[in-house]
Amino acid sequence: METILEELTTHLGEINDLESINALLEWDQITYMPPQGATARGRQMATLSTLVHTKHTDPAIGRLLEKLHTYEEQLPYESDEASLIRVARRDYEQWIRVPSAFIAEFSNHLSESYTAWLAAREANNFTVVQPYVEKTLELSRQYSTFFPGHDHSIDPLINLSDYGMSAATIRSLFTELRQHLVPIVHAISEQPAIDDSCLHQYFPEDQQLAFGNEVIQRLGYDFERGRQDKTVHPFMTKFSLGDVRITTRIDENYLNEALFSTIHEAGHALYEQGINRAFERTPLAVGTSSGVHESQSRLWENMVGRSEPFWHYFYPRLQAAFPQQLAHVPITTFYRAINKVACSLIRTDADEVTYNLHAMLRFDLELALLEGTLHICDLPEAWNARYQTDLGIVPSDDRMGVLQDIHWYMGYIGGAFQGYTIGNILSAQFFEAAQKAHPTITSEIAQGEFDTLHNWLRMHIYAHGRKFTADEIVAQATGQPLSIEPYMNYLRSKYEKLYIL
Amino acid sequence: METILEELTTHLGEINDLESINALLEWDQITYMPPQGATARGRQMATLSTLVHTKHTDPAIGRLLEKLHTYEEQLPYESDEASLIRVARRDYEQWIRVPSAFIAEFSNHLSESYTAWLAAREANNFTVVQPYVEKTLELSRQYSTFFPGHDHSIDPLINLSDYGMSAATIRSLFTELRQHLVPIVHAISEQPAIDDSCLHQYFPEDQQLAFGNEVIQRLGYDFERGRQDKTVHPFMTKFSLGDVRITTRIDENYLNEALFSTIHEAGHALYEQGINRAFERTPLAVGTSSGVHESQSRLWENMVGRSEPFWHYFYPRLQAAFPQQLAHVPITTFYRAINKVACSLIRTDADEVTYNLHAMLRFDLELALLEGTLHICDLPEAWNARYQTDLGIVPSDDRMGVLQDIHWYMGYIGGAFQGYTIGNILSAQFFEAAQKAHPTITSEIAQGEFDTLHNWLRMHIYAHGRKFTADEIVAQATGQPLSIEPYMNYLRSKYEKLYIL
Repeated sequence: METILEELTTHLGEINDLESINALLEWDQITYMPPQGATARGRQMATLSTLVHTKHTDPAIGRLLEKLHTYEEQLPYESDEASLIRVARRDYEQWIRVPSAFIAEFSNHLSESYTAWLAAREANNFTVVQPYVEKTLELSRQYSTFFPGHDHSIDPLINLSDYGMSAATIRSLFTELRQHLVPIVHAISEQPAIDDSCLHQYFPEDQQLAFGNEVIQRLGYDFERGRQDKTVHPFMTKFSLGDVRITTRIDENYLNEALFSTIHEAGHALYEQGINRAFERTPLAVGTSSGVHESQSRLWENMVGRSEPFWHYFYPRLQAAFPQQLAHVPITTFYRAINKVACSLIRTDADEVTYNLHAMLRFDLELALLEGTLHICDLPEAWNARYQTDLGIVPSDDRMGVLQDIHWYMGYIGGAFQGYTIGNILSAQFFEAAQKAHPTITSEIAQGEFDTLHNWLRMHIYAHGRKFTADEIVAQATGQPLSIEPYMNYLRSKYEKLYIL
Repeated sequence: METILEELTTHLGEINDLESINALLEWDQITYMPPQGATARGRQMATLSTLVHTKHTDPAIGRLLEKLHTYEEQLPYESDEASLIRVARRDYEQWIRVPSAFIAEFSNHLSESYTAWLAAREANNFTVVQPYVEKTLELSRQYSTFFPGHDHSIDPLINLSDYGMSAATIRSLFTELRQHLVPIVHAISEQPAIDDSCLHQYFPEDQQLAFGNEVIQRLGYDFERGRQDKTVHPFMTKFSLGDVRITTRIDENYLNEALFSTIHEAGHALYEQGINRAFERTPLAVGTSSGVHESQSRLWENMVGRSEPFWHYFYPRLQAAFPQQLAHVPITTFYRAINKVACSLIRTDADEVTYNLHAMLRFDLELALLEGTLHICDLPEAWNARYQTDLGIVPSDDRMGVLQDIHWYMGYIGGAFQGYTIGNILSAQFFEAAQKAHPTITSEIAQGEFDTLHNWLRMHIYAHGRKFTADEIVAQATGQPLSIEPYMNYLRSKYEKLYIL
């Protein structure tokens, strides 16, 4: 049996190598590739995707899994071996349903679509990329048809990033969340606006980068196993457990931009860097779901990075880095500024309270597009209409509106946005559990010590990689199922104080 | 027939994609990869190499080539189709002769040898790496046996980089060159040394990079299809005809280092960027040989970049970039400084006149090793003896001597060094032909205009890619066979003036 398992591991290792290579091709495409390299890069990624697909669907894997069936059942569910076989089987059964011609077409299409998105942003005009998005929608629908028996065509797409979730459960979760959120947003909007002018000064790029690097190193991000570069749209990517990279975006006239995107992406990276090294080169060596992943970026960005104790430690350092800008700004002014709530247009810049309104409206637009009740040509208008309804403001142009996120231009339409809100909900649930286990966490953070929190997260979430599903991780780590209660408690107690509600 | 050719092109295109991907993995490894990414990167490259080898030796290619045989013979030799089939056949016949077990063994051996070389450099002791070099020599000999019928065991190794050349022709070429070179070196060494202290000042990195980029952009390097990064050892690499990158190395206390390595690598890049775009994704889309490639890096670096007219245009700009360092240095002083001749120990730092002595002595050592008249254990002593004879100086240790170049520790022994000298010879032959065709080239260079020269090179050399062999390119472009005459004329007329011989 061990020989068969080893044979399976070799197969999976090669797949992992090729997928890691593909991630590097993408990273380079977004960070350093010269413009004229795009066409060939698209072809190269298509060739690689075809190879990956061939390897994923190799009947030899099916035969090995078949042989391992009894063995797997004899092993404890939580053993590494059983988990590897289980996850490999889940992947295999998903892959063999998708034709390789489709994969190649989609991959090639995405490279073109990405280039068109850049051009559309440049021209500030959605119609430049519209035909590509139309094709993306068509291909997204087609993808769903490979998985008959689903309740909603978005479900197979959701399964890609949030395995086990569905339109039905998410819709009811989001409805409940919105019912609680909207009154808070209203109450806050009736209060005087917080003055955040201290953030809108000139902060030179190099110093911003240096401070951000200092912060995330302190949080536990390992620069021997990663690096940070600049991109239009910040992201985290991984080429092995020894090479987990992040990117950031700098606005020299607004401190929040780079600072919180750096912490956010470092949160994702801490997850990946924290995976059990024994899982290297297997399908277990990656975060378990988009929602759990986002819970970590948001936990570090918000529960930690936007908290009072965090700035108790870091604010004197920030002042030392920017004396001219901040020496005379009291910490309370700064703390209130970075937590200012205001209905705004850009999701990634949104405050904690309104953020989920951005994510949830995108989820609804995805549903409508897939259901056919909304057409791509009407998407900018529908987008603007939802911003009017949900946030009370309307984008002045496409760049501030429908063109802002990379997702629909670099991936499927459907399944891209629910993870953000699930992540917010989970971030509070995990943070509450960690604090319950270690009540000293808050005071440690105030002293710039993050090891207790980091170790708890590593032990209960990171180390497992993909061994357990999101639901299993939540249950094991918190003793509860997914629940919005900790998140609403967190928001209420924080913002009631900030806005004296 | 066109369907069969298309089928072949598809096969070759996939190989080209995978090889381009491998080049990106290498580029990233050397430029930006964090230290802990190395192990996984090695595995990923091994997985990719196995795939590439399988594709190169796919019997389907052999069958397609067989079917295309008559078709090829009916086409004009210089047609793109015939050339593609011809070059693909040459590659295929080379690949299938080498057993995949040998490739795997050699590749494994090289990574061990490379590690041992690093340790040997660290210890400054050749014996640390000696057993590895012994095995490399054995494997290099074995490689030759896969190609029976050669005159000298180095010939199949030379064919890898300088197709069509042989020990016999290179030996007589080098003997002739040495006879002419040595008296010049002697004559120069009897003249007073040139003062190059103006180059040994503090030149800040950012300004050096900016000036280098300005220069190569003016020469014709297309930054839309490339970029420049920093590495320990400068190199040029290519991921497609739309993505040709270079790297440079900066010494803030010595101006020559970055400046001429940037122009040198840009010369390689101009070649690759100038290849007919129709050849993209085929085996024709690369420079034809190591010698012709080096002729272009050396032509732009020396014939152009170290010439008087070049600095007539660029020196005022250089002075403007570094006023404190150069405002009071006359152009003649600067021009003499960048052309200073001095017998030295490190090949890559050598001046134009002595450079070939370094390359040719390595070639002779390779011959003696392969012939068995020199044993690896005696290599350091033989190396030092040749430096005494040829350059009049002896390395003080192995690091300054036999351990300095990576070639014998990361590749075959044999075929590694002849290209450098052939490149120097050809650089003058091509430059002379271009000037004969366009006598205005020199005066254009003095005005910072490089289009006439660039276009001539593109038309006669670059555009053809690998369509013609080095010999064919030389004959077509210059109307002559390979000859040292233009090179010796160039050196004599330049250095007689500089050193008043």
